[in-house]
Amino acid sequence: MPKKNIFIVYAHPEPRSLNGALKNYAVDHLQGEGHTVEVSDLYEMGWRPEADSRDFLEYNPEERLIYHSSSKKAYLTNTQAPEIKDEQEKLKWMDALIIQCPMWWFSLPAILKGWVDRVYARRFAYGVGYHGYDRYGSGNLKGKRALLSMTIGPEEEHYSDRGVHGNMDDLLFPITHGILYYPGMEVLPPHLLYRAAGLTPEGFPAIAEAYSKRLNSLFTDKPIPFRSQGGGQYDENLRLKIGIAEGKSGFSIHRED
Amino acid sequence: MPKKNIFIVYAHPEPRSLNGALKNYAVDHLQGEGHTVEVSDLYEMGWRPEADSRDFLEYNPEERLIYHSSSKKAYLTNTQAPEIKDEQEKLKWMDALIIQCPMWWFSLPAILKGWVDRVYARRFAYGVGYHGYDRYGSGNLKGKRALLSMTIGPEEEHYSDRGVHGNMDDLLFPITHGILYYPGMEVLPPHLLYRAAGLTPEGFPAIAEAYSKRLNSLFTDKPIPFRSQGGGQYDENLRLKIGIAEGKSGFSIHRED
Repeated sequence: MPKKNIFIVYAHPEPRSLNGALKNYAVDHLQGEGHTVEVSDLYEMGWRPEADSRDFLEYNPEERLIYHSSSKKAYLTNTQAPEIKDEQEKLKWMDALIIQCPMWWFSLPAILKGWVDRVYARRFAYGVGYHGYDRYGSGNLKGKRALLSMTIGPEEEHYSDRGVHGNMDDLLFPITHGILYYPGMEVLPPHLLYRAAGLTPEGFPAIAEAYSKRLNSLFTDKPIPFRSQGGGQYDENLRLKIGIAEGKSGFSIHRED
Repeated sequence: MPKKNIFIVYAHPEPRSLNGALKNYAVDHLQGEGHTVEVSDLYEMGWRPEADSRDFLEYNPEERLIYHSSSKKAYLTNTQAPEIKDEQEKLKWMDALIIQCPMWWFSLPAILKGWVDRVYARRFAYGVGYHGYDRYGSGNLKGKRALLSMTIGPEEEHYSDRGVHGNMDDLLFPITHGILYYPGMEVLPPHLLYRAAGLTPEGFPAIAEAYSKRLNSLFTDKPIPFRSQGGGQYDENLRLKIGIAEGKSGFSIHRED
C-alpha cells in the first residue's frame, strides 16, 4: 500500500483510558505499515476550546467581534492564533483524518468541538467558493479521508433504528455530514465501540484486531455515499430536487444508498 | 401569571452581539413580568469547557480517571468543583431554563457543550433511578421547562425538510431530546433566528417583539411531544414497541405527533 500521511485528533482526559489505548494502537500500527502519523492530543496540548477574540492576532477590542468576519480576515492575512494555523497545516498535509474520542451527550467532547469551532476557519473550511458553496463533496479537504473512531457507554440496541436514544447514524450526522463531509472529506462509516465502560484490558487484543482491519482499509473502504451539493441533486434553494427520495424523511435522504 | 424562577445559560464571546442583545432583552422582559432571573454568562464567567480531573476535589492522580465514576462519587459526597455545584443549584432552583447561543457547526458552541459535559453529573442528570432509567420524561429536572433560543447563520430553507444541511428538527434532536429531555425537562419548540448575520440593529424591535411572545408563553406553550421512556412505548431492549411508528424512520418516530 502506498505510504500516506495520517492525522489523529484525540480527545480524552485520561491517557490510561480505552481511547488512549486505541490512539496509541493506531499510531503504532500505522507507523508499522510505513505511514507517517501526526497526533494532536488535545488535553495534553492544553487546547483552548472556546472560540473568542484571542483567535485573531490583529483583533481590535474597540470593535464588535463578528467571529466569522474576523476568521476570514485572519485566515487570509495570516494573522490567526498560531495553534489554529498549526492544526490547519496538519489538515492540509494529511491524506486521512482519524478522530478518536468518547461520545459525550450524543456529540463530541467539548474540547474537540472547540477544535472544530476554532480550526474550521472561514475560507478554509467554510465560505469556500462562490457563495461558499464549495462544500459537501467539494472544498479544501476534498479527496482526503475521515474516520470517526468513538467509544459509546451503553449498548448498541439503545441506538438502533428504533432505540430510545435515536438511531446512531442519525445522531452522528451533524458530525459525519456537518463537520467531516462539509469541507470535502470522504467520510468512512464510523468505527464504534459500544459498552465501552464494560470492556476490560483482557478484551483489548480482540478490540485492537478489529480496529486494525479498519486501519488497513482506511484508503480502500467505501465512504458513506452522501449526496454532493454540486452534483445536481439539489435545486437553487438547496433542497433535494423533486423525484429524489420522495416521500421519505430523516437524514437518510441525503445518502445515495 | 405566577412568578417563576428562570435560568438563562448564555454563550457568546461578544457582549455586543445579537445573542447578547437577546439575552439582555430576556432578562429585562422576564424581570419586568415579575420573574426572578439568573444568568450564567459562560464567556464572562471564564467557564472551563473541558471535563477533566479538576472537576473532582478528591481525585487521586495515581488512579486512572474514569470520569463517570468520579462524577458519581463527587456528586454524592459533595466534592465536585464548586462551579459545577453552583450550576446544578441553579438548575434545581429554576422553573425554566433558557439556552441562548449561536448554532456553530450544527451544534452548541464548545463552551456550552462543556457546560453540559461538566454540570450534567452522574446521579444528577444521568444514572438516576433503577439502571439509570429515570430519564426521557423522568429524572431530577422533571417538570421544569426548557427553551433553546438559537441564532443560525444561513437561511431557513437550507434546513428545511429536504434542505442540504438536514432538517433542523433532526439536527437539534441530540440537544432537545438528548440533552434537555434526557434529565426530565419539558422541551419547548426551539426559538430560531435564521440569517442572523444579515440582521441589523434596526430590525431588533421586531425580533424582540417575536421573542417576547415566546417568553410570555414559556409556561403555557405545548412541549415537543417526545415519547417517555417509562410510558410503556419502549420494550425491554429500549426499542419502540411493535405497532408504534411502524415503517417509519428518523428521529420523528420518538415523537407522539
